[in-house]
Order: sequence, then C-alpha cells, then structure tokens
Amino acid sequence: MEHTFAIILAGGAGTRFWPASRQLRPKQFLPLGPDPDEPLLRATVRRILPLCPPERILIATGAHLAAATRDLFPEIPAANILAEPVARNTAPCIGWATRVIARRDPDATVMVFPADHAVVDEDAFRDAISEAISLAHRDAIATIGLQPTRPETGYGYIELGETIGHQSFEVKRFVEKPNHERALEFFEGGRHEAAARGQEGEALADIFPILPSISIDHGVIERAPRLAVVRGDFGWNDVGSWQSAWELAPKDATGNALSSGVIAVQSQDNLVRDLRTDGRPRVIALVGVEGLVVVETDDALLILPRERAQDVRLVVDELKRRGGHSV
Amino acid sequence: MEHTFAIILAGGAGTRFWPASRQLRPKQFLPLGPDPDEPLLRATVRRILPLCPPERILIATGAHLAAATRDLFPEIPAANILAEPVARNTAPCIGWATRVIARRDPDATVMVFPADHAVVDEDAFRDAISEAISLAHRDAIATIGLQPTRPETGYGYIELGETIGHQSFEVKRFVEKPNHERALEFFEGGRHEAAARGQEGEALADIFPILPSISIDHGVIERAPRLAVVRGDFGWNDVGSWQSAWELAPKDATGNALSSGVIAVQSQDNLVRDLRTDGRPRVIALVGVEGLVVVETDDALLILPRERAQDVRLVVDELKRRGGHSV
Repeated sequence: MEHTFAIILAGGAGTRFWPASRQLRPKQFLPLGPDPDEPLLRATVRRILPLCPPERILIATGAHLAAATRDLFPEIPAANILAEPVARNTAPCIGWATRVIARRDPDATVMVFPADHAVVDEDAFRDAISEAISLAHRDAIATIGLQPTRPETGYGYIELGETIGHQSFEVKRFVEKPNHERALEFFEGGRHEAAARGQEGEALADIFPILPSISIDHGVIERAPRLAVVRGDFGWNDVGSWQSAWELAPKDATGNALSSGVIAVQSQDNLVRDLRTDGRPRVIALVGVEGLVVVETDDALLILPRERAQDVRLVVDELKRRGGHSV
Repeated sequence: MEHTFAIILAGGAGTRFWPASRQLRPKQFLPLGPDPDEPLLRATVRRILPLCPPERILIATGAHLAAATRDLFPEIPAANILAEPVARNTAPCIGWATRVIARRDPDATVMVFPADHAVVDEDAFRDAISEAISLAHRDAIATIGLQPTRPETGYGYIELGETIGHQSFEVKRFVEKPNHERALEFFEGGRHEAAARGQEGEALADIFPILPSISIDHGVIERAPRLAVVRGDFGWNDVGSWQSAWELAPKDATGNALSSGVIAVQSQDNLVRDLRTDGRPRVIALVGVEGLVVVETDDALLILPRERAQDVRLVVDELKRRGGHSV
C-alpha cells in the first residue's frame, strides 16, 4: 500500500529577523505568519495534517535545533525528527529523509516543504498539493510555481509547457534568478512561474560532511526526466524580512500590527513586536511615527523603517564586529 | 553677620519626560542636562556651592519626594529639606523657607532657584547671581532675565529700565506671557528680557492648604517697590521636553545622543536613553532613522519624533484613560 509522507526542511538559520531570530531560535520558530501566536514551523505542520498524519511527517533540522523541534511537536514521533550534523543544503537532507521513508514504505509518495514560509489560503494550498500528489502518482516530480506579481529577480523561474491538469503544466525549462530585464519579460509574457528556491538545509556525521552542498533543484529536479509544475495561488510569502512579517500580520484600521499592550498615538503602518519573555508588565508607546519596525526581545531592541528591513544585517554585522553580544 | 542662603524649589511634578519621569522620580531627579550622569537637581546644588555652603542650602520639595531628596544630598543637613504637604505654587513655599532662614539669620540674603533647569556656562551663571546678590544688598529684589533668542510666547517678559550695574537694570514693567505679535515686538525692540516664570511649588499641613496657590512672581515680585533684573547669558535651558534634553546632551558627529550600548547605523539626530536599572546586558539598535526620541525604562518604551516631544502627554493621557500603568 502506497502512503504519502511529508519532509519538512527546518534547518534554516539566518539573521534577517534579528533580534527575534537567534542561532537557537531561527525564523521557523517565530510567529511571523498571519497568526501572531503560531510559529511558522507549527503552521507548516498544521497546514498539511489533513493530507498527512503526524507519524508520516518527518522534520529535518540542525542537531542544535532537534530538541526544540521535538518539544514543539509532541504528536510527531521523536524518530521522525532528523538531526543533521552539518548543513549541506537541501539535496543531501532530502536524500537522507527519503531513504528513511523508503525503509518504511518503498512505494511512498514524498512531499517536501520549507518550514518557514507563510500561506494565507490554506484550502487552496492543499488543493495545489493534492494535484501535485496526483501528478507524482503518474511518476512525475511535481513542483509548485507561483505566478509572479512583479518582475522579481530574487527567485528562479519555470517556463510553462503543455497543460497537463487542472492547474498544472509540463515544465519546459528552469531559469536561474534572472536580471531585471529578463524578469520583466517573464512577468509580461505570462508563461513563467516563480519558483521559491534555495532552501537551506543542514545535515549525518559520517556522510554529510563529504556530500556536496547542493540544492534539490540543481541536484535532482532540473535533471529529472518527468517534471510538472502546479500553479499555486494561495497567498504565498516566503517571509523574507520584517517587511514581509508586517505584510502578513493582522493590522488595525491604521495599518499598525501591534503586540498587546502597545499604545500607538497618531501612528500608522508600524510593526511592533514585544517578544520579551519575563512576563513583567510593560508598555510600548509610539507617537507620530510611521512605517517603523520595532522589535523588543529580552536582550535587544531594534528600530528601523520597514522599507529598510533588509538592513537589519547591518546591525548583525556591527554586533559581530564588536563581539560580546549573541547574534 | 549677614549670610547668603539658597532655596531650591524641587517640588516639580509633570509628565513631559514620561516614561523617565514618574510621580516618585520627577524631572529634577533625571540626568537631563549637559552631563548625562548628573540629575538636574544635583547639578543645581553643585552649581551654587561656590556661592553657598551646603548647610545654608534649603531644598523645598513634596512630602513624597523628601526621602529621595535627602538621599541625593548627604552633605545637606536633613533639617534643610522642607517637605511641603500640598502643592501651593512657589509663593507659600518660598515664604515658609524664608521664615526658616529668618530664624537662623534675620539679615540673610536669600537666593531662590528652580531645581530642574540646565545651565551651560556655570561661571557666567555665578557671575550673574553674584551681581544679583550685590543688588539685594542694596535692598532690591533682583531677578535673572534671559535675552530672548526668538519671539517666545511661553514665558513672561521684563521691560528693562535704567542700567544700574554691569549687567543689571531697573525693572520698568513685567509683561504676562505675550501673544506672538507682542513677543515679536519685544524680541525686535531689544528692551525686554524673558523671565522664566511659573515654577511649581508644593507646601505645611495646617497652613499650606488654606494658602492661596500663587507664584512668587504674581504674589510678591510684581508688587515689590525695588526691583532689578540681571541680564543672564549662560546658556540657560528650562529642559521642557525630550527635545530640550537632546539639545543639551553631548552628541556624536552625526547628531546622535546615545546611551552606551546603543548601535546607530545610518541614523542621525536621535536621542536614545536606556534608563533600565536591572543591569542585564542589552543592545538597542537603530538603522536608518532620524530625529527620533527613544526612551526605555524598566517598564516602558517610548518612541516619538523629536519635533513632537510635547506630545508625550498624549501617551500619558491614554495611559490614565486605560488605567493600570504607572504614570
């Protein structure tokens, strides 16, 4: 009997959400999606539970994050949390997880998800995944493509071929991250889907260090004989910065996304996240400010304009230069 | 033998420095002047010590602030800290303190100072005070006037009469806070000095509550037969808002006045005050912001543009409306 399994790639590191994200609490552990109380990784698991029971969900993560990941999912068997000893991008990691699954069910269909993306319309998301599963049953490797809403140069593109299902197409060609002119051409042509690529992975003490660090896209998908793409239209966001977090967050009538206890007077379009954990009552007050990101943790406070959200790395660089403060 | 005594009016309350200022830690206890480590009240005392020994300095303050005031000045006899049971503006308070002084030295010359103003050039300040003392020795009530640097409508004005000393003049007339046209006329005419008026006072359980609440200006000075004014030119600032605090604070080359541990990347003209007292290491990071006031205390964080510093009262009003948080 053939079963569907899910592999969730939860090895992400990164500093784009400093000071909320840290080495021991990277982005997937943060509530950055539409629900301000739900970590992205938990939302990822919840989203696929109607398609896949917990005992067939595997989560691949870094060794240093394995305990925190197990704690987050008491319903998932501990053996399903795969702790990668070193990071080797997504291909070795998916290879390992697929081998674990094959031992349990040699005919399994395997879904692979990033842990730290956000989805607004979860029913539409599951519809797309179901269509991808049916394509996989016809021996294709199926990916999800998102119709670009702007000439984005940050992702790879997929050139669509023949229609092969309700929302699905043959893959004519993968195109690396394009320059702006090319992205504009793809965007206006309407025959290219943006592919969210380049998920970080991490990885087994003996094997992983000698494996090439390569993504599943380059390592496998682009070389596969039968490829299909399902057009996804479910409000996808890879939550790449505090700006994305503001876009996804529930906001009041003045465009503010505020933690409880925040007072905003004559202020608009701000993101304020009070992530302190000591439980002491405090107030954060804004007067007359617009478009700011304000993030407070137990040991840091960040203030920057939303439009400069990518520049949080400048702070992280400065902290590394100074030393002495955890990044 | 005639001695010079000082009365320091340290009963000030007010919310313009929320969240730093609180009922039990009003403005005069905060380091808002040129020295970021010295509370305004302590600077006021230090400034006059060359003119007046500690045993002849009296500090009038509210009963609820008496203990904190004594703690700040171990060198001043405890009997010199006058605790007013209720606030009755400056006239009753100065009347009481003057009576205390008269019992010790019926011929004393008395200086009266607000506790919470800042002075940049302390030698020039003491020169002006010395000239005022010499005028007092000639039986005048002498006040210090500041030459206006703009047509300010927030203070009263003094019209200058005949020159009677190096920097001093007879007082021709006091003028209440003028409207803008009148202030402009005074400013351009050059015969008016701005008088920093309206110091708050507080005041003895039996007497004070039935005394009229009136300032020394209205209650006494404007009715006195012999009045003189000394032109002060010593970089005076009444530290009326976080904006004033920024103006007074030492700043780096990019106009930032920062507490230690603050990282400012591509940011300028900000005032950042980390007033937390728990001693835990923390970092405050700004990226790409300009002209902000950021004040963090143990239980509150305030963020507002410097130019809107007066609007901190909007937060205080909102907190009072909500209840439950100390203002």
